[in-house]
Formats: sequence, structure tokens, C-alpha cells
Amino acid sequence: MDDAILRTLFPDGETLRPVVAQEVRFGKVLMVGYMNREAFHRTVEEGRVTFFSRSRKRLWTKGESSGHFLRLVSLRYDCDGDTLLALVRPEGPTCHTGTESCFDGRLLVPGTEGRPAFETLGDLAGTIALRRDGDPETSYVARLLSGPRSALLKKLVEEAGETMAAIYEEDAAGTRSEMADLLFHLLVAMERTRTPWEEVVGVLEKRTGKGGLEEKKERSRTAPKKGEAP
Amino acid sequence: MDDAILRTLFPDGETLRPVVAQEVRFGKVLMVGYMNREAFHRTVEEGRVTFFSRSRKRLWTKGESSGHFLRLVSLRYDCDGDTLLALVRPEGPTCHTGTESCFDGRLLVPGTEGRPAFETLGDLAGTIALRRDGDPETSYVARLLSGPRSALLKKLVEEAGETMAAIYEEDAAGTRSEMADLLFHLLVAMERTRTPWEEVVGVLEKRTGKGGLEEKKERSRTAPKKGEAP
Repeated sequence: MDDAILRTLFPDGETLRPVVAQEVRFGKVLMVGYMNREAFHRTVEEGRVTFFSRSRKRLWTKGESSGHFLRLVSLRYDCDGDTLLALVRPEGPTCHTGTESCFDGRLLVPGTEGRPAFETLGDLAGTIALRRDGDPETSYVARLLSGPRSALLKKLVEEAGETMAAIYEEDAAGTRSEMADLLFHLLVAMERTRTPWEEVVGVLEKRTGKGGLEEKKERSRTAPKKGEAP
Repeated sequence: MDDAILRTLFPDGETLRPVVAQEVRFGKVLMVGYMNREAFHRTVEEGRVTFFSRSRKRLWTKGESSGHFLRLVSLRYDCDGDTLLALVRPEGPTCHTGTESCFDGRLLVPGTEGRPAFETLGDLAGTIALRRDGDPETSYVARLLSGPRSALLKKLVEEAGETMAAIYEEDAAGTRSEMADLLFHLLVAMERTRTPWEEVVGVLEKRTGKGGLEEKKERSRTAPKKGEAP
């Protein structure tokens, strides 16, 4: 940990800094709280986010009464050294009203667009996971998760083929829809095989870090030319 | 707009509230600033985020000198009515240091996990888009974007098949890797066909909203049973 940064962030025991708690897999902002130096140290020591409650004027470990802790994954600071971003894994809903985020359903200025894609994706993955306990008679996803493996796997290849066909036909709406189908069935396949989304994307992260074709060369399925970039 | 909420958020002209600016497609937190009532109204009127700069003690439209505005998509408030979440479309890097986010590269407490999946995904989509101008001789993605369409489309189906094979072989590492390949080529196909990620996910949002199989029934490719849930 960078001591100079820590002294900037918390020059004394009283200074409070805003902390944005963000879900680490799909990126939903869950809440904004405040930390003083003590709350910061306790958060790092315990691996669960502790805030300083301005109303109660005491340290407050989020989840201490509800059990819905925020597991700390990593902490960042901003260019001004006066704000923190905590990437967390929430254990249950974060808001005391029972919603996932304290901002859920509280739209002040509606946009022209629908819900943000990253939130839809997170919700969808959550819904699919819940369907493990669903009734295959009434739920399509439950059927894909518990029925013959072949049904899901054939569907995955089928949707890739349909995406290809829609692109060849230059059908923009069809392409969008088939790509959505493909992405959806890929998410179901991840759930069925218990392959976490973040691990799949993590594979891409490693490749990107290495610079694309350099990495591809190592996997050597094809033989890209020398000096290729991703 | 809810006037009661506005009076809570901004009871007078002086009260400052923290505002988290978050990129709307992939969810990266870009910066945290502050708004007073006037900054809020100007943000809504102009559709670009205006903060109240605490150091300069004046309204400050983010991008007024750099041209890197934050286009407002929507604004939410939290359960305490004292914090705002602005979903934005950034026009260029947000941080004055030239990085996308003010939190980029400022890790205070590193996690055991790598970078969050939602950030990897956003970066990857951005990198792929940049490859439009890339050299097909040195970049695999540039080649997929500008070469014969068949090369990319066959790859898409091939990767779906390889994912299927890895799942049948119960090869966890292979499954993860092939799913990553499939997701990657799907992203390239989105870029090639200029099908925005958020529109593809938007299709899924509409279906989720409707409750899965009800919607599927309408599309009627298959004939699901009555009363089915997603």
C-alpha cells in the first residue's frame, strides 16, 4: 500500500472520504458510503467493507445487522486522492430496502435509452442461475440446465449458424436478435457447466494483456505472421 | 422529475451532493464529482454533466476545456436521497491525465482476482473497434474485420462447435477457453456488422422484461408450453 497516498486520503483520523461500492463482475454501483482512516484499515484487515456512518457517528460494517456483507475485492483511489472505489462481491442485497443496489428503481432523469447493458447482463446471469432450482416444465432455462446436455449444446451451435445466416442476409434486426440468442445460450452453457462469466472473460483479459496474436501464436491453433498485433 | 426528491437532494442553492459518473455500456466508474442545485439543472437542460467544482468554487461543465464531455443518459438517486448516479456516454477520456477513468491504474489495495470482467469486456470492445483502421497484415482482428466475411462467420460457428466439444469432453479449462473464443468472435462480428453491444443486450432486456418464454412464444420458433416462465 502506498503510504503517501494514504496520508493524502486520510491526513488525520477525522477526514471522511466518499467510497463507491461497485459489484465486481458486471459493474453495478451498489452504494456510496464514507470512510475515515479507521474504517479504511478495518476494511482492509477484515476484507469486508466498513464505513463511517455519518448519521450514527460510528464505524459501521455494512451487513453487520443484515448479514449482507460487501466482500472487498480491491480498492482504488482517484486522481485527486480524495475518493475511493471499492470493487466488491456483495453477499445479498446491498440496500436496506431489499434491492440489490441503493440506486435501483430510483430514476430521477429517465434517459432515452433503456436500462444499461451491463445491468441487464448481470440480472440475466442472476436469473439464469436461479433457474437451477426451477421447474423444467414451466421454465425454458430450467429445461436447458437440467435436460439432456445435447439440447443446450445443439442450440448453441444452431444459434451461431443462425447468426451467420442473418449476417449473410444483411438483416440488421435479425442479426441483433440472433446474436442475442447466441449470447443468451452461451450464458446458459456457462451456468450449466459452472464456468463463471468472470473466468471466461478472464481468459480474454490474459490474451489482451499479452497482445493478441502473440498469445494466439502460443496457443498455435493457427500460425499467424510474425510481429502481429491483436 | 420528482419535486419532493429534488427538495431532499437540493434543499437550498448551496448543498453539494456527490455524483458518480458511470459509463453506460460496460459500467466503468469514470469519476466522482459534486453537484449543487444549479449544476443539476444545467446538467439536465444541456444533457452534459456539469459539476460544482469545490476547488474553483464555480460551476464546471466536465469537458468545457478538453472537449471531453460526459453526455447524460440518465440520473438516479439513492435510498438516502443524498447521492446521485449519472449514467453517461463519455466523449473521450474522462481523467485530466488522459486515462479513461480517474480511477484507472490507481490500485490502493490489490485484490486476489485480476481486473474486473466488466472492464475487460469494455476495453476489448474498444480495442476491436480500433482495429477497423488496423493493418490486416499484422492484426488478426483487422483481418477478421476487413477480410472475406466468410472467414469470420465460419470462425463463429467453429468456436460454437469447439465449445460444444469441450463441454462434451468435460474439459473445464478447454470449455473456459473455447467460450472465451466464442465470445471474442461474437464481439468481432458485432463490430463488423456495426451491431452495438448494448443493442444486442437490449434484445435480451426486452425478453427478460416480458418473462422469457412468453416472449419466445411470440417469436414462435419453437412452441413452448403454456404458462412457462423464463
